[in-house]
Amino acid sequence: MTFDDIKGMDLAYEEALKGFNEGGVPIGSVLIHKDGTVISRGHNMRVQKNSMTLHAEISCLEATNRVPASITKNCTLYSTLSPCSMCTGSALLFKIPRVVIGENETFMGAEDWLAKNNVEVINLKDARCKDLMDKFIAKHPEIWNEDIGE
Amino acid sequence: MTFDDIKGMDLAYEEALKGFNEGGVPIGSVLIHKDGTVISRGHNMRVQKNSMTLHAEISCLEATNRVPASITKNCTLYSTLSPCSMCTGSALLFKIPRVVIGENETFMGAEDWLAKNNVEVINLKDARCKDLMDKFIAKHPEIWNEDIGE
Ligand SMILES: [Ca+2]
Ligand SMILES: [Ca+2]
Ligand SMILES: [Zn+2]
Ligand SMILES: [Zn+2]
Repeated sequence: MTFDDIKGMDLAYEEALKGFNEGGVPIGSVLIHKDGTVISRGHNMRVQKNSMTLHAEISCLEATNRVPASITKNCTLYSTLSPCSMCTGSALLFKIPRVVIGENETFMGAEDWLAKNNVEVINLKDARCKDLMDKFIAKHPEIWNEDIGE
Repeated sequence: MTFDDIKGMDLAYEEALKGFNEGGVPIGSVLIHKDGTVISRGHNMRVQKNSMTLHAEISCLEATNRVPASITKNCTLYSTLSPCSMCTGSALLFKIPRVVIGENETFMGAEDWLAKNNVEVINLKDARCKDLMDKFIAKHPEIWNEDIGE
C-alpha cells in the first residue's frame, strides 16, 4: 500500500457515498495514472440509469471518453469492492496492471483471473466500504442480488 | 447450429451493418431467449458515443434496461466477433449459458474462459462478419486497435 493507494481509495469511497446518497448501489471506482493524475471516477448506476452494465468500474472507464491503452496500462484501478467478472475483464482488456480494492467480503470477484494475468491485486480491507454495502444490502437485497447476477 | 442460431446471427450482422453505416466499429450483438424472444440488440458505439465500454455485447445488455439473471440464464448471446475479456466477463456475470459468434479470425476473445466456465461457444465462421471487419480495419486500423486495448 502506498500513499496514492490511500488517496485512491478515499476517492473511490467518495464515489460510493455519492451512489449511496442517490439511492444507488454504493460502489465507487477511480482510475489513477502512476504519475498521480486522476484520469476518471465513477460509481454504480444500476438504479440511477436503470443499467445492468454501469458497474462502478465500467462507469469510471466510460467517463474517460476513450482513453487509449497506452494510458490505462500505466494506471491503477481502484474499486471499493472486488471487481466482478465483467469489470475484471475490462481491466484485462485495457491492460490495467494494478487493481486496488476496498474489500472482498461482501462479494468475491474474479481476483483469480486478475492474478492469473499478472495483474497486481491489493485488498485494503477498508471497513468503510463494507459498512456502506452492509447498509445498502440490508435495505435492498433484491437490487444487490440483481447486480451480481443472482 | 440451429435455425435460431442462423436467425440470431442474421440480426447480429444487421446490427454490425448499422454500426458500419454510422462510421463505427462494425460489431453487432443480440440476446435471444430460448423461447425465441429477441430480448435486446446492440452494436459497438466506440465512435458514435465516444465510448470505450460500449462494445456490441455491452450495448446489447445495456439496451435491456436491467433484465435479471433469471432471464439471461435462459438466453443465447450472439456476437459477430469473438467476445473480448470484458464482454466474456459480462456473459459470465449474467450466467448466459450459450455464446454464438460470427468469427474469431479478426480477433480471438476470451473463449477459453467461457469454455472453462461451461459456457457453450459456437463459431459460425460467417464470412460476412469477417468481410465487414476487414473493410473497417483497412480504413481505420487505429480505431480498431484502440477498441481491443492495443
Ligand atoms: Ca439503461
Ligand atoms: Ca462516452
Ligand atoms: Zn462489475
Ligand atoms: Zn468486448
